[in-house]
Amino acid sequence: MTSLPPSNASRTPNNPSVYALDRQYVFHSWSVQRTLDPLVIAGGAGCELWDYDGRRYLDFSSQLVNTNIGHQHPKVVAAIQAQAAQLTTIAPSTANWQRGEAARRIIDWSPEGFAKVFFTNAGADAVENAIRMARLYTGRDKVLSAYRSYHGNTGAAIVATGDPRRLPNEYARGHVHFFNPYLYRSEFHAQTPEEECERALHHLRRIITLEGPGQIAALLLETVPGTAGILVPPPGYLQGVRALADEFGIVLILDEVMCGFGRTGQRLALDHYGVTPDLITFAKGVNSGYVPAGGVVISQPIANYFEDRYFPGGLTYSGHPLAMAAIVATLDAMTEENMVENAARIGAEVLGPGLAALAEQHACVGEVRGLGLFWAIELVNEREHKTPLTAAAMQRIKNALLQRGLLPFIADNRIHVAPPLVVTAAQVQQALATYDEVLTETAQS
Amino acid sequence: MTSLPPSNASRTPNNPSVYALDRQYVFHSWSVQRTLDPLVIAGGAGCELWDYDGRRYLDFSSQLVNTNIGHQHPKVVAAIQAQAAQLTTIAPSTANWQRGEAARRIIDWSPEGFAKVFFTNAGADAVENAIRMARLYTGRDKVLSAYRSYHGNTGAAIVATGDPRRLPNEYARGHVHFFNPYLYRSEFHAQTPEEECERALHHLRRIITLEGPGQIAALLLETVPGTAGILVPPPGYLQGVRALADEFGIVLILDEVMCGFGRTGQRLALDHYGVTPDLITFAKGVNSGYVPAGGVVISQPIANYFEDRYFPGGLTYSGHPLAMAAIVATLDAMTEENMVENAARIGAEVLGPGLAALAEQHACVGEVRGLGLFWAIELVNEREHKTPLTAAAMQRIKNALLQRGLLPFIADNRIHVAPPLVVTAAQVQQALATYDEVLTETAQS
Repeated sequence: MTSLPPSNASRTPNNPSVYALDRQYVFHSWSVQRTLDPLVIAGGAGCELWDYDGRRYLDFSSQLVNTNIGHQHPKVVAAIQAQAAQLTTIAPSTANWQRGEAARRIIDWSPEGFAKVFFTNAGADAVENAIRMARLYTGRDKVLSAYRSYHGNTGAAIVATGDPRRLPNEYARGHVHFFNPYLYRSEFHAQTPEEECERALHHLRRIITLEGPGQIAALLLETVPGTAGILVPPPGYLQGVRALADEFGIVLILDEVMCGFGRTGQRLALDHYGVTPDLITFAKGVNSGYVPAGGVVISQPIANYFEDRYFPGGLTYSGHPLAMAAIVATLDAMTEENMVENAARIGAEVLGPGLAALAEQHACVGEVRGLGLFWAIELVNEREHKTPLTAAAMQRIKNALLQRGLLPFIADNRIHVAPPLVVTAAQVQQALATYDEVLTETAQS
Repeated sequence: MTSLPPSNASRTPNNPSVYALDRQYVFHSWSVQRTLDPLVIAGGAGCELWDYDGRRYLDFSSQLVNTNIGHQHPKVVAAIQAQAAQLTTIAPSTANWQRGEAARRIIDWSPEGFAKVFFTNAGADAVENAIRMARLYTGRDKVLSAYRSYHGNTGAAIVATGDPRRLPNEYARGHVHFFNPYLYRSEFHAQTPEEECERALHHLRRIITLEGPGQIAALLLETVPGTAGILVPPPGYLQGVRALADEFGIVLILDEVMCGFGRTGQRLALDHYGVTPDLITFAKGVNSGYVPAGGVVISQPIANYFEDRYFPGGLTYSGHPLAMAAIVATLDAMTEENMVENAARIGAEVLGPGLAALAEQHACVGEVRGLGLFWAIELVNEREHKTPLTAAAMQRIKNALLQRGLLPFIADNRIHVAPPLVVTAAQVQQALATYDEVLTETAQS
């Protein structure tokens, strides 16, 4: 044990000192530690972030697609500060005002038919608990989820995940994966959205039949798969999944952790499809991640089931007052400031058309797709064979965007475009111009 | 969707309104929903909490044994408010000042030989990630943990847990359970601490041998098992476990989620035993749960291993700035205000002797045991057969304590005594008098 100064209040951080402290002591997610080169961030506001030298970045990632309300929204900051002054933490077994208000608002954001909210710390344990509820409610074991998906990193959530990050973590049983629609790289040899939809539903029915409908507790799907590539489902697909769940008595869980709370230009992504699941998982956008929070929205029949039966799940920080106050303030601010409408309008009028124009101008753009402020630019070596751009090329693109002051979200061979919902047309134009420059540079190299 | 008022700022909460809101919308952990009767809590300070009518409670639970620093510590509240004003949230891939400072302090709180900290949202995902690291580092699958344990509620953590809450959740593989020492209800027919220790180590060696040492990645143990009953290990046990781990090349994970950060009157509970594990999991006391946070402290060899190898785990809120600011302020305040020393002193001079006196006076007290401010009063019908007090009797005790303004922690047939570390001798005397009254009442009924 070395001797530490008792307080850091008197020390002034700067880019090198914060960087050095991080590299010495902090172990980072999803990486080889030696290769890390973390960006130092000191503060932010709205769609901007800056470091200690005053270098500014336009945040077109919303971090991990969570700061839907933008950075440092004054109403949410004030609500956190006020709740901190009142009561920072209290056990989940108590009744807490902000917890009740947060649950009430989330029920209001959800479709008809939802009754209660179980709060967790984030999306992974939201998915864990939704799976737990489905297994208990149905008395069945198996959970079907998509290969192209990400549902979190804890024991059951990571094995429900289809992304290859599942592979070193397969220690849970009862998980089966199926192919979800992705017309650009169709598993079903489809040529049109109609074909992709019909064949994906046929495939899912085959999997259900062969895995045994009576053994399947849950169908778990991101409404719009996010990390997997912003895979907007073709018209009719989610309705077809709902019909299959109904036919076989399977609980339908829609994961709105990344796509919910205004991201797609609707309150929840499922509002685009008129589909009502049995459980909804959420996190991220619900309070922009200002305080860690997630949860499960529970439909009336499943809530009724647990009225008289023990629920064997829980966590110390379920319904944490600071997180709840941030939810209340975030959802109120999103409503008062029409952020969902802004996301829909900017997406339809500026970002969508702008990305379509990029796709026309750049041969390396295989496809752009998205909804609201949730888009992917899929980059390929040549359009005919759709060969993904290499990791090295994507790293160069990331660096080039950062050098121009744009903070991007890079996933595999894609740039995900997901600014805060408060983004302006001018900021989108600025980002589009930056993408354009960097893609031009990429084509030349 | 009903129409909600856009803001609750103008509404004044009270006990009935907060209670009603909770019962209508909030789904609670570990319970049958219909039977719930949650306590309304409006605010708190130090060891006290109060409701909207001004009714006060002396908190001898520290909620879920997390508010080690007491409620609403002004320095931690101020640090959260200041960080909220600066930067509430930022992605884990960045370098953040408070994250670096928090990691540095945690390394300083740990024994020699620890290098880096991986931050999670809470204890469950701390355990998940420690297990992940151990499996990858050893290339082995199995995880050995104790029947009398609690390690969290997510997929792998709940199956590592030995508590019967595991049973409806057994969907992960590779977990094997063994008996840990508990002399009062010895699985080994032991009569003395020495016998219990020797036989428990013999049993563990047998389990390791029969499960295949070459297949065992980790030995996972709470340093002092908490929820299972504050099972202070007999002298030599943890040293023996360390020796077994070394003999067979198994990673030793000590879970300090509940017992760490001053709770036992040492910085970490492992400091009582002079045992250095390979990984330490933490949460709760690290920042008193003011903001959800947990993590894994990583020894140098395991940190080195991941310098050049990919770590397949992560989460959106890893190293969340608000949580990190709360860690920095909590650990600094604990040091500046000598809270660990206070816990040791009050435990040794007031609480321990007081509980021993209760055990002498009340035939229904089978045993009291503990360290620092981490104690259990184990209640039985008669001492000879050690029959646990029934759930109904424990519920009556809980109600009687609450009626007298003492907020207790009840687990099975035990009262766990775990006030904040800032508790005074007078508050402990008050609580002891209340336990005394209620146990007298229990004997009479």
